[in-house]
Amino acid sequence: MNKNSLINNIKEKKSFLCIGLDSDINKIPKHLHVKGDPVFEFNKAIIDATHDLAIAYKPNIAFYESRGSEGWNSLRKTIEYLKQYDKEIFTIADAKRGDIGNTSRQYAKTFLEYLNFDAITVAPYMGEDSITPFLEYEDKWVILLALTSNKGALDFQMISDRDDDLRLFEKVLTISQKWGNPENMMYVVGATQAEMLQTVRKHVPDHFLLVPGIGAQGGDLKEVVKNGINSDCGLIVNSSRDIIFADNTELFAETAREKARKMQALMESLLLENNF
Amino acid sequence: MNKNSLINNIKEKKSFLCIGLDSDINKIPKHLHVKGDPVFEFNKAIIDATHDLAIAYKPNIAFYESRGSEGWNSLRKTIEYLKQYDKEIFTIADAKRGDIGNTSRQYAKTFLEYLNFDAITVAPYMGEDSITPFLEYEDKWVILLALTSNKGALDFQMISDRDDDLRLFEKVLTISQKWGNPENMMYVVGATQAEMLQTVRKHVPDHFLLVPGIGAQGGDLKEVVKNGINSDCGLIVNSSRDIIFADNTELFAETAREKARKMQALMESLLLENNF
Repeated sequence: MNKNSLINNIKEKKSFLCIGLDSDINKIPKHLHVKGDPVFEFNKAIIDATHDLAIAYKPNIAFYESRGSEGWNSLRKTIEYLKQYDKEIFTIADAKRGDIGNTSRQYAKTFLEYLNFDAITVAPYMGEDSITPFLEYEDKWVILLALTSNKGALDFQMISDRDDDLRLFEKVLTISQKWGNPENMMYVVGATQAEMLQTVRKHVPDHFLLVPGIGAQGGDLKEVVKNGINSDCGLIVNSSRDIIFADNTELFAETAREKARKMQALMESLLLENNF
Repeated sequence: MNKNSLINNIKEKKSFLCIGLDSDINKIPKHLHVKGDPVFEFNKAIIDATHDLAIAYKPNIAFYESRGSEGWNSLRKTIEYLKQYDKEIFTIADAKRGDIGNTSRQYAKTFLEYLNFDAITVAPYMGEDSITPFLEYEDKWVILLALTSNKGALDFQMISDRDDDLRLFEKVLTISQKWGNPENMMYVVGATQAEMLQTVRKHVPDHFLLVPGIGAQGGDLKEVVKNGINSDCGLIVNSSRDIIFADNTELFAETAREKARKMQALMESLLLENNF
């Protein structure tokens, strides 16, 4: 998917919601366990119930990989279902891969060709040749980890470079612009604090940001939009457990829809406020 | 496997060789393609031919994952074959994973429980909570990326911290010692230059190092041993393509054995020189 299509989808759906399909088999409703592929059945029901409210879906690969070849089948069926359902849905493999060039090329083949995702999250530690193989695909995207939302982000991402005072996450934002551009690269930015988002936008005014870890209340979302929106919207905000595991009865999909509907409504009002 | 068993294996086999099973289906000998699972047949032949010369095997997961559920089956069969063949072989999942705590826990389950590897390579970018879930398993190991052997290593790993002048790879070596110890953590160190190895050993005198990217001639190996060996040996040196893809005729396994034999012989002489 190219950038224009992504922006059009945001305009049409009045939403920049990404739903994280972190479909842990131990957390999905019990009644699905009688079916042949409970994880796929779960994803299918969630997608059916929310596809008009979300512009993107993001399976975290760990939850599939942990079930071996069965998990890979659930993943493959999920992505095929998504593509078939609505060609304009943006699909993100949350894989956080990154290896030497030849090996990254294999990972690119897996996620961008074989599974046909639109985008993959990639870890920056190994530098340029670990990332560029993912950028060789037309209309596909690298979403590079910059500032993550977990506690451990403080261990290395905040280290300041002696030479230019930029912190490691800022180095990632600036150096990686030599490899990609706003048409094929986005950044994971887990921050909700104004100062951090403003710093990020200073370095990457035109890129899309994938923002995880937004609370269901919406307070964080307002801050993110206030400090992170650009003329393309430039934001994809992810919610996983708050939506998909909000209810584990037979009504789980309806509840997921209600949760997604609330997020979308808030997003719509924030887009309006910002004349988008 | 615990540290003592690993050291005993090195002593018994007079080798610290790890063979990288980067078994790209497009690079294995053509005649194997008539078999049901050519990648497993290839790995089996390599293992049969080299298991008395190597103390460790390291499949790079990318080459399996790129073949979807079939690839996962090849991987599972390979690791089961290794465990059955020789319980004292150290098995490393070269996966370079790393995600927020809950997700890393899923990856740990995949590689350390389901596939029962002894060790997994992990990327440090996301910090403590992305790494500690892998350390919760007795006699299992995290092998943390510190200084990688690729060109892109220069992009971020050499950034010097304003506060203490330590480079990022040194920060990884020092900060991660709060999370693990020499009994459950090793480091990937792709350097062969004396200065770099001496710096690494200053920070982690007692840890094992996994060293990739050693040329077949052995000149690099001498430097690595000279500057990297400690009283436990403390080194696992990996060779992948130089051994497994040295020959793609029907004699591939015999050639792989010859290559591995040369490496092992050099290692034996270097261990002797160092009174190990």
